[in-house]
Amino acid sequence: MPEIRKDLVKNHWVALANDQALKPCEFPIAKKNLQISKSQETCPFCEGHENLTPPEIYADRIPNTIPDSPGWNLRVIPNKFTAFTLQGEFDKKITGIYTNYNGLGKHEVVIETPNHNEEFFNYDQKRIESLLSVFQQRYSCLAQDNRIKYIQIYKNRGMLAGSSLEHSHSQILAFPFLPRRNEGLIHYHQQKGHCLICDMLQYELESKSRLVWESEKFILICPYASRFSYETWIIPRRHMEHFPEINTEEISELAFILLRFTNLMKNSLNDPAYNFIFNTAPLNSQYKAGNHWYMEITPRMLISSGVEIASGVYMNPVAPELAASMLYKSLLEI
Amino acid sequence: MPEIRKDLVKNHWVALANDQALKPCEFPIAKKNLQISKSQETCPFCEGHENLTPPEIYADRIPNTIPDSPGWNLRVIPNKFTAFTLQGEFDKKITGIYTNYNGLGKHEVVIETPNHNEEFFNYDQKRIESLLSVFQQRYSCLAQDNRIKYIQIYKNRGMLAGSSLEHSHSQILAFPFLPRRNEGLIHYHQQKGHCLICDMLQYELESKSRLVWESEKFILICPYASRFSYETWIIPRRHMEHFPEINTEEISELAFILLRFTNLMKNSLNDPAYNFIFNTAPLNSQYKAGNHWYMEITPRMLISSGVEIASGVYMNPVAPELAASMLYKSLLEI
Repeated sequence: MPEIRKDLVKNHWVALANDQALKPCEFPIAKKNLQISKSQETCPFCEGHENLTPPEIYADRIPNTIPDSPGWNLRVIPNKFTAFTLQGEFDKKITGIYTNYNGLGKHEVVIETPNHNEEFFNYDQKRIESLLSVFQQRYSCLAQDNRIKYIQIYKNRGMLAGSSLEHSHSQILAFPFLPRRNEGLIHYHQQKGHCLICDMLQYELESKSRLVWESEKFILICPYASRFSYETWIIPRRHMEHFPEINTEEISELAFILLRFTNLMKNSLNDPAYNFIFNTAPLNSQYKAGNHWYMEITPRMLISSGVEIASGVYMNPVAPELAASMLYKSLLEI
Repeated sequence: MPEIRKDLVKNHWVALANDQALKPCEFPIAKKNLQISKSQETCPFCEGHENLTPPEIYADRIPNTIPDSPGWNLRVIPNKFTAFTLQGEFDKKITGIYTNYNGLGKHEVVIETPNHNEEFFNYDQKRIESLLSVFQQRYSCLAQDNRIKYIQIYKNRGMLAGSSLEHSHSQILAFPFLPRRNEGLIHYHQQKGHCLICDMLQYELESKSRLVWESEKFILICPYASRFSYETWIIPRRHMEHFPEINTEEISELAFILLRFTNLMKNSLNDPAYNFIFNTAPLNSQYKAGNHWYMEITPRMLISSGVEIASGVYMNPVAPELAASMLYKSLLEI
């Protein structure tokens, strides 16, 4: 049975997939090459290979095609290699000095395209809109389960961003507990009585030094304390706590921004590995004010070293002011 | 002037080297190849290239050789690409909603060998003993400065462990503030009145399920909540708060263990990138009980993905119990 364990020294959590164990030579990076295998023949996410995945949870299908068969635009499946399963009740166990939880939760994979060679920057805007709508639907569905306390939507693109499969996909992970994250939002609201992200949005629009772009519904900034070089946040101007509160106009604009930004990374940032991260509010817990959903894009041009792992202090060789200015100029050219 | 910035949302710190900015194509991983350039001709750490580094702080030299010239076994230099400098007083600045510190501190590099092709697992035990003694000396020297609150000693080996230079080296980073780290040690002592690491040592020796090795002065375990597959902690049996309290017998035994363990990683873990991390006690701050220095070895066989970055929850496909059993068997064969 998979489990989630608490580290007593650093207070972090680890999800262990106990049912299997990768041997050292089986890790994706074992071959010391950053290119993930391009083989389509064995790719479980390709159209026609539906039998290689667990049964689909949802699919945007051509009418009259049957589940788990070809004829889809986008497909949601359970993550086969997860430490989480939605069975039973959340259970805490103490063994000697240690604490663990059972792996209650849900881990889904969104296969963004049936085409192995189509990458995010190749998509048309409509595909990205569909993807964002699927995130919205799956989030709302999972959020109805009282046992779920936080939902993390994210995308890993490229091996250096933690991806082990090349075929373009995203992930939705529903946690049975609230991970240690974004506590600053709550703290700021308790202290000042208003939303940190709204204040940040105002401040960055006035100062302009870290502003990458502004559109009607969103602003793009390189955050003041960027952990990653060229890290960019996409902040909705409208104060919304949960991502699914996004409306169709905002989805359309966000899709347009993501399409342009992924093309920018491809053309001007040397095509790096990257993550998309959706920061949103806790669920089914005691309400605390101060949350405002926003999205992080983290190009992964450096690998965290011993100092980041040990001290949590990030080293970033590119000041966000320089990054923002470069990204602004590059966006003008796209 | 370099600076250290606080992120308000996640409460982390970022050290920015503002005086320079890497262009996207200048990052070490820009070429999507995990092999760092092997060129000795331009390596600043090779014997004979002393003029490519800042003046040495310390060197274990052959008698009658002059500083910054050939004839050394081990050399300590300032890190050329650091965000830290030991000038002036620690200074906090608030700009609008943001807080930053000046980059007060010291960042040193220990060149472990004059030989470009000699890796840690090739060293003789004497070289490792010298290296540990140099860590001890430099730590004690830097700790005398009241402005320094924490010293992080670490080693990055291989690009996937955050290293950008192949020539074998370690780093010593003296912080002007206490990074958010190991707070569990203090908390546990406040609650229970004894040392968590001592309790853990006792528990792991009794349970044996995560025990990799035990020697007279140290035990090796795969920690209960291992973030990294095959992560191993080396814990001194004797309760010591600061690393420099280590005595010559312990140095000798630790050197022997590190030599065996690096050979084990080379032979049985598919020669992964890895970090050494020394966890030690805060300095020049109000005393709090509960610290016990120990060392972490983190093989870097997976790259952190969006979920780790976003939620701080680590995904580990290898249970520490399986890892410990495999490492124990492999150590028997070395």
